[in-house]
Formats: sequence, structure tokens, C-alpha cells
Amino acid sequence: MSEEIAVVPGDGIGAEVVPVAVDVLDAVGDFSFVHADAGDAVAAETDDPLPEETREAAAAADATLFGAAGETAADVVLPLRSAVDSFVNVRPARTYPGVDALQPDTDLVFLRENTEGVYAGHEATLADGVTTTTRVVTREASARLAEFACDYAPEGFTVAHKANVMRETDGLFKQTVEDVAEGNDVPTEDALMDALAMHLVQSPEDYDVVVCPNLAGDVLSDLSAGLVGGLGLLPSANLGPERGLFEPVHGSAPDIAGEGVANPAATVLSAAMLLEFLGHDDEGQRVRSAVETVLAEGPRTPDVGGEASTKEMRDALLAQLG
Amino acid sequence: MSEEIAVVPGDGIGAEVVPVAVDVLDAVGDFSFVHADAGDAVAAETDDPLPEETREAAAAADATLFGAAGETAADVVLPLRSAVDSFVNVRPARTYPGVDALQPDTDLVFLRENTEGVYAGHEATLADGVTTTTRVVTREASARLAEFACDYAPEGFTVAHKANVMRETDGLFKQTVEDVAEGNDVPTEDALMDALAMHLVQSPEDYDVVVCPNLAGDVLSDLSAGLVGGLGLLPSANLGPERGLFEPVHGSAPDIAGEGVANPAATVLSAAMLLEFLGHDDEGQRVRSAVETVLAEGPRTPDVGGEASTKEMRDALLAQLG
Ligand SMILES: CC(C)[C@H](C(=O)O)[C@@H](O)C(=O)O
Ligand SMILES: CC(C)[C@H](C(=O)O)[C@@H](O)C(=O)O
Repeated sequence: MSEEIAVVPGDGIGAEVVPVAVDVLDAVGDFSFVHADAGDAVAAETDDPLPEETREAAAAADATLFGAAGETAADVVLPLRSAVDSFVNVRPARTYPGVDALQPDTDLVFLRENTEGVYAGHEATLADGVTTTTRVVTREASARLAEFACDYAPEGFTVAHKANVMRETDGLFKQTVEDVAEGNDVPTEDALMDALAMHLVQSPEDYDVVVCPNLAGDVLSDLSAGLVGGLGLLPSANLGPERGLFEPVHGSAPDIAGEGVANPAATVLSAAMLLEFLGHDDEGQRVRSAVETVLAEGPRTPDVGGEASTKEMRDALLAQLG
Repeated sequence: MSEEIAVVPGDGIGAEVVPVAVDVLDAVGDFSFVHADAGDAVAAETDDPLPEETREAAAAADATLFGAAGETAADVVLPLRSAVDSFVNVRPARTYPGVDALQPDTDLVFLRENTEGVYAGHEATLADGVTTTTRVVTREASARLAEFACDYAPEGFTVAHKANVMRETDGLFKQTVEDVAEGNDVPTEDALMDALAMHLVQSPEDYDVVVCPNLAGDVLSDLSAGLVGGLGLLPSANLGPERGLFEPVHGSAPDIAGEGVANPAATVLSAAMLLEFLGHDDEGQRVRSAVETVLAEGPRTPDVGGEASTKEMRDALLAQLG
């Protein structure tokens, strides 16, 4: 292993948890790390939350590990997702022994379309007080996501949509995903995103992999964080054909930033997804097991019922990886 | 009281629960009811899920009580909402003693914008496989909703949005609602809809009234149904300057339709909102209390942990209203 990993800690707790994940990656492999800045702090100095060299570092590296950004989050994370040419955002949300969860039987993975929907960014002010956002859905992006979903979940998946209202866009999304799945002999069921929000809260055990348009994936994955014990546990992987961007689902958490108590689990689990993306499946599995052991036995940070610091969780993780 | 109420039971369980609410209205007041058809069944005969006379009945009546529609739901409910000129959809989601709830301290009201957003219905196929939905947000609709919210919740409310991505549209929504609230000395806090989805799941007790764009209100209210014990408990009121449309948040529930076990509570609570809209506050309160007593003491339908039929719950409700 000597792949290059761009490391972009960003703001707030991003700068506290990313170094833990870097230590973990260092413990299981031999990577060259390229550090780069992004977020509110660098914007305060340069007026640019995503300096060109950071974008280039992400576009050039084999994989990028990103922490979080504050107010400037959208200006950082959306361009970074496209810098690595990612078309899917993989967001697992599961419970862990040792961590209290509202719905202990939750084990979900959201496959979120990562390039279009309302995120395509076409907005306009047509007249004073009259604004539009043009939501874009294409067959190409929907099919690419669906092909990925068929590989990822050959035993089947749920397609989330709101095609009863957005007949053209979500109609195309649903039809395309279902057609690709049928062509691959992968079974699907579909669900209206509103009804699905309720069912996920009531019976998450009835679902497994959920394929979503961009904003639906954003909302449904965050909702599921509430079921499993919080955003401190949710990793994510933005995957493109050659590169990936790995980031915790949580943000910069200004309320606890600087206190040294941020939970590094989501970022370390994102690093496990990075390892697997680079083909280091055993190492990814070792990191995952280390997180599971530490969550089960402690030390745990306050968000997951403990009193430990980020540093204590880090040391315990590294001890596991021995 | 001799107001005219249009009654549109619709499909599936709509046809089972609406008559219960009509009996309840009859028990507490003196209304003239105008019955009208809508939904899959009438569409099968006439090709039109919303016959013109039904639309006219809703547009002419003082208030309309609607049940549910099946596959044609969007073709029925969206035109009915505009037939009564409704600009806000009021969706309370609360727990009841006697009904198991995932989050027992939930007592929320969603005020959902009811005329625009992705529901404005501007869709296009720009090329083969390339589709758009144009989401519309205006200052006028946002301000009207905000004025209503200030009356409804003078002690303050939360503004849901995704203005970090939809800067023009949700930016205008957020700014307008906040400006109106400030002008009325009503305190507000804002929340990104994704983060709010998680917080509502984890700590619904931290929220009270939530003002939402159209689709956000759809999803967040359904999510909250999962917290309080299901859609069988959620009423709603679509309010315009002169008329209103009152409907359970649940749909036609084809899985249990025809079995006589549908929970009438959501529709009867919608009737209570109808009574209050028409100024019959005491009667509305009596109906609400009857529902609370029956949910607490039984008989209860299977969705809320009982074994009773719709008819048994109906009889118990009418006995309460004695
Ligand atoms: C910061 C924001 C643009 C982002 C999104 O909406 O994708 C965030 O909410 C997320 O889910 O990673
Ligand atoms: C049937 C559908 C158009 C409707 C909506 O999205 O408003 C329903 O989901 C609701 O919430 O009443």
C-alpha cells in the first residue's frame, strides 16, 4: 500500500476527529498523506472556503478523508464531492452493541444519488419575491446509481421517491432504477419518501438498502441517525469511478468543538470505507471491529453515553489495532 | 349552526372512517351534508378521479371533510386543497394516553405551506432522459404562511428549510418568515430540514410548532406519525381565508380496507379541527375529549394496540358525546 490520501480536516470537530482517523489509517497501512485546508477558517483568511489546491489535492489523490465545515459546508462539500467525480453517496446507519438506540434493530444503508436533484444548483429569481430551484433528474445518473445498487445489494433494495407529485423527475428516477434492477434480476420495492420516513421510524428492521434521490437521501439518512443513537456513528463514502471522498455525516458541531469530546467513530468508520474502496478489505474489517469493540466496552464519548475524551477513544482504538 | 359541509369519503378506508366523523359532527351540531365522490372508484367509471361537481361542492361548502384516495390521491387531494383556496396545511402530531408511542413526549404541530414548492407542478422533459421539476417559492406565499404562524404560535416557532443548498428559494422562504415573525415580535429558530429530521426523532420534546415548505412539511409530519404511534392518529386541516378541507394524514390503506378495522381517530380529530375552524370551539373540544377518552379506555382498533372494530370505536365515541 502506498496510495495517496488527501486529508481535509476542516472546521470545528472535523479538526479533532480527522487526526484520529489518520492515526488509524497509519496503524493499519502505509499511506502518503497530503494535508489541505477547507471551511470557515480558511475562508476568513482568503475569502475562499475551498482553495484551489485543496480541490486539486482531492481530484488527484486516490481517496480523500474530509472532516466537516461550518457555515461554508455547502461550498466545501458539494465541490469536493464533484472533484472526486462521485455519483453515489453510501450512508450506512446501524446500531452498535453498547450504544443506546431508539430502534435497536436498525441496519440500513442509503445509496444517495450524488450529482443532481435540487443539488444541481439551478436557481433563479424570476421577479422580486419570486424564486425557483430547478430540480434535474436524468436517466443517465439514475441508471448509474442503479447499476451500483445492483452490485451493492444483489438481494434487492427499496427505491425511495415522490413520483406521485414529481411525475416527470421522480417518475424517471423510479422507472430507470426499476428497469436496471429488472435487467440485473435484482428485486426492488418502491416507497413514497413521506410514507417511508414514517415506516423507517416505526419499523427500520423491515428495510435494508434504500436507493434515493439526492435530497431524499440527505433527509432519510439523517432521520436514521436519530434511530441509532446520533450522527456520531454515521460514516459516508462518496464514490466515483476512480476516486472517493470519505466523510462523517455529522457537521462541525460548534456546540462541542474545542472541548476534546467529539466522537471519532463516524470518521474512523469512514476511513474503514476508504480502506475497502482501495481494496484493503481486511484492514477495513479490522478498523470496523476495533470501533465495535471500543463502542461496546468503552471508553465512549458523551454523545454515546460515556464520559471519555476523543483522545481516550483514540488510544483505545489504536490499542485494539495493536 | 347550519353550515354546509361537503363530505368526500373517497377510496378504501376513507369510505369507512368518514361516516364515523359525519355521525360525530351530527351528534354535536346541526349541519347540512353534501355527499360527493372522488378517487380510484369514480375514476374507474368516469376516467376522472375528481368530478367537477365534487370540486364545486368543496369550493362552495363552508368546509369539506375528505377521507382518502388510492392511486389517484395526488389528482384528488391537490386540486381539492386549491378548490378551498387553502394556503396552509395544519398537521398536529401528538401522543395520547393509552397508545404506545416510540417518543411519548411528542406534541408537535407542522404548519405546511400548501400552494407551492415542488407541488407547484411545473415539470418538463427537456430531452430524452432529461427531466426537471421547477420548485417555486414566493415572498407572498411565504409571508401569508408566516402571518398565520404568528397568530397560531405567538410564543414562537421553528422554521424548517434547506437554504444552504436552495439559497434562492429556501433562502427567500426563511428570510420572509423570519422578517414577518420579527415584525410581529414572535421569536423563531431555524433548522435545516435534514438535521431537524434527526432531532425530531431523538428529542421531539424540544420542538413545538414547525413552519415548513410544502415537501418538508409532508415528510416531517409523516416522520412524526412514526413517533406517536402511527398515521391513524394524525388529523389535518387545509385552511384558506374562507373555507377549509379537513382530512386524515393517512391514505386509503388498501391492506386493511374492507375489514372494518380502520381507526377513525384521525378523521374524527380532523372533524374537531373543522368544528373549531367554523367557530364551534366547545364542540371541537368535546370531540377531542371523546377521542382522548376512547383512546385511553378503549375500545381501540388494532393499529393502536386494541382488537376493536371501526364500529365499536364509533359507538364508544358517540356514547361519550351522549
Ligand atoms: C452541508 C450540506 C450541503 C450537506 C448536504 O445536504 O448534502 C449535508 O447536509 C450532508 O448531508 O452531507
Ligand atoms: C397524496 C399526496 C399528493 C399527498 C401530499 O404529498 O401532500 C400526501 O402525501 C399528503 O401528505 O397528504
